[in-house]
Amino acid sequence: MLQRLPAEPGMREEEVDTPALILDLDAFEANLDAMAARLAPTGAKLRAHAKTHKSPVIARLQMARGAVGQCVQKVAEAEILAWGGVDDILVSNEVVSPRKLARLAALSGIARVALCADDPAMIPVIEEAAEAAGRRLSVLVEIDVGPGRCGIAPGPEAVALAGRIAASPHLRFGGLQAYHGKAQHLRTPEERAAAIRHAADGTRHTLEQLRQQGLDCPIVGGAGTGSFPLELESGLWTEIQAGSYAFMDADYARNGTPPPFRQSLFVLAQVMSAPRGSGRAVVDAGHKALPTDSGMPLVHGRPGLIYGRPSDEHGTITAEGAALPAIGEKLRLVPGHCDPTVDRFDWYVGVRDGRVECVWPVAARGAMA
Amino acid sequence: MLQRLPAEPGMREEEVDTPALILDLDAFEANLDAMAARLAPTGAKLRAHAKTHKSPVIARLQMARGAVGQCVQKVAEAEILAWGGVDDILVSNEVVSPRKLARLAALSGIARVALCADDPAMIPVIEEAAEAAGRRLSVLVEIDVGPGRCGIAPGPEAVALAGRIAASPHLRFGGLQAYHGKAQHLRTPEERAAAIRHAADGTRHTLEQLRQQGLDCPIVGGAGTGSFPLELESGLWTEIQAGSYAFMDADYARNGTPPPFRQSLFVLAQVMSAPRGSGRAVVDAGHKALPTDSGMPLVHGRPGLIYGRPSDEHGTITAEGAALPAIGEKLRLVPGHCDPTVDRFDWYVGVRDGRVECVWPVAARGAMA
Repeated sequence: MLQRLPAEPGMREEEVDTPALILDLDAFEANLDAMAARLAPTGAKLRAHAKTHKSPVIARLQMARGAVGQCVQKVAEAEILAWGGVDDILVSNEVVSPRKLARLAALSGIARVALCADDPAMIPVIEEAAEAAGRRLSVLVEIDVGPGRCGIAPGPEAVALAGRIAASPHLRFGGLQAYHGKAQHLRTPEERAAAIRHAADGTRHTLEQLRQQGLDCPIVGGAGTGSFPLELESGLWTEIQAGSYAFMDADYARNGTPPPFRQSLFVLAQVMSAPRGSGRAVVDAGHKALPTDSGMPLVHGRPGLIYGRPSDEHGTITAEGAALPAIGEKLRLVPGHCDPTVDRFDWYVGVRDGRVECVWPVAARGAMA
Repeated sequence: MLQRLPAEPGMREEEVDTPALILDLDAFEANLDAMAARLAPTGAKLRAHAKTHKSPVIARLQMARGAVGQCVQKVAEAEILAWGGVDDILVSNEVVSPRKLARLAALSGIARVALCADDPAMIPVIEEAAEAAGRRLSVLVEIDVGPGRCGIAPGPEAVALAGRIAASPHLRFGGLQAYHGKAQHLRTPEERAAAIRHAADGTRHTLEQLRQQGLDCPIVGGAGTGSFPLELESGLWTEIQAGSYAFMDADYARNGTPPPFRQSLFVLAQVMSAPRGSGRAVVDAGHKALPTDSGMPLVHGRPGLIYGRPSDEHGTITAEGAALPAIGEKLRLVPGHCDPTVDRFDWYVGVRDGRVECVWPVAARGAMA
């Protein structure tokens, strides 16, 4: 509940309490600029995914560089963003609980909000929430373009759902949500290209049928850090929902031809034990600081050091052709997977040239409901 | 930062916002009672591990049943417990940062606090923090009884370290920390027995040498939910540091002859999508709600339903010989690993007979530093 600030502006990085979430501001800003520059000459806009950064501060930095708004996965995330000054938010996910729909409808009084649907049975429920709040909600149809998670089948079923939304007095058909999550981490460029070709086929097909039905489709949203150049190439997507590009992680680095962004996010950990003759050093960051769902973190800038064997609050460092770090040394670890790692911390510690420059809240940390 | 309460007392469980951390109060209280009854006729006391529950409320319920105090892994956890009225706290872990040592020494003004050391080089650093605060700190020597993580070798090295602590004017030799974490999840009773036999040998040997040196050893701490009957049997351990026994999880359930406690902890999730003809239902709890470091969660009380393919905010339910749940249905999931799962949530929702009875803060959630 009440977590102490891990650092203060002006401190040296090595003075920061560990484990801490470090944001290398030069790399981070370079990433924001690079994405803005990449999208500027295209017809597509960035709607950055806040499920990664969970921060109205970062959302506003992205929007100052041309992003049209933010995506979130949860109503609670939408609330934190809207309360923090973000005025255009898409819940790129289904919302089915009437209580959550009421919260979202209430939020539409202070921000432009939209959500997704993938089942006709939900439309009267969403309509009822919008009507009760006296609001008109924008609803996108999520189509399953390949990953096999949520989403209605592209084509006639999706078009019928769009028609049903458009015919609801308090709803507006907002467009198509066409995100291929699985494609982001396919290891070869060829696999990713094939996945997005398939996604584009289903999307194009659905767009044609919407046009035939006279249904205007204002947004086609989707794409992530691992695949967005492919979606751009198709010319179909109008909004790119990349999030990880701002931070990057060890899993993206394992993609063949990884995305052209710099690692800006680290977990700073400290060596707390180095048993004599054991060939290992133990750091104070384990499962609770560094989720391993996408593999182990990497030790940054220290070739030959390997992080492994995590337990709840410990990780073990071994060395190949390098000296083991000593008790008290601090190491920058590259998270295996940036999204759940950010969600473990209450604060970003922004660092430039070895000094803490800012401390920002991970304001939507834990905002799951 | 600001997470809304997921429930209010009196609500029915199915009204609770998801994902939510549900505590089945009947099972939970039965677990606390069972451990108290198991330890009562032995010479050992419970010093329950708060790294699992992160709650001063639960700590006090354990202490009301005879626990002598609590263990934690982090100084920040010790602070939250002490501020919440817990008066006897062992950091069962090394603390090496002078700032954290100063915080711990400061805390010793309102609670009895102790910590561990496993390296002679740290003793002057701990002594300095205690002296600066005008306090006397109790320091246990952590010995590596088998897991190969932190800890000094049992025997002469450990005894020399104990002597060094005892000779420091502001420190007191508090005893031995002899915890075999890895043994908790060894799958067969035979493997666990062999591991704890080894741990007991190293501990006995060190105790004998301490006695020969005239060093009194007030505490031998260690043991967890998966192994504690074995430590009790040895007669060496005076404090049992089990934590998971209060909740249990899917990983402990996979132990051959699992520990004799009931599953009391669940993550309540809601079906948010069930694409027609897909053979799956998608729930709103993924990596961010249910860490998978120790395997997948289980669906509770619904034979034939299987949770799998988690992504950040989604999990996929498939069915074998059972009907798939419909959109809107809520499912109790048994976490793969209780400790990091609790640490994902801000609130426990305590439920009895289908009704919310209490909402308790996971007060030390995220207390990693």
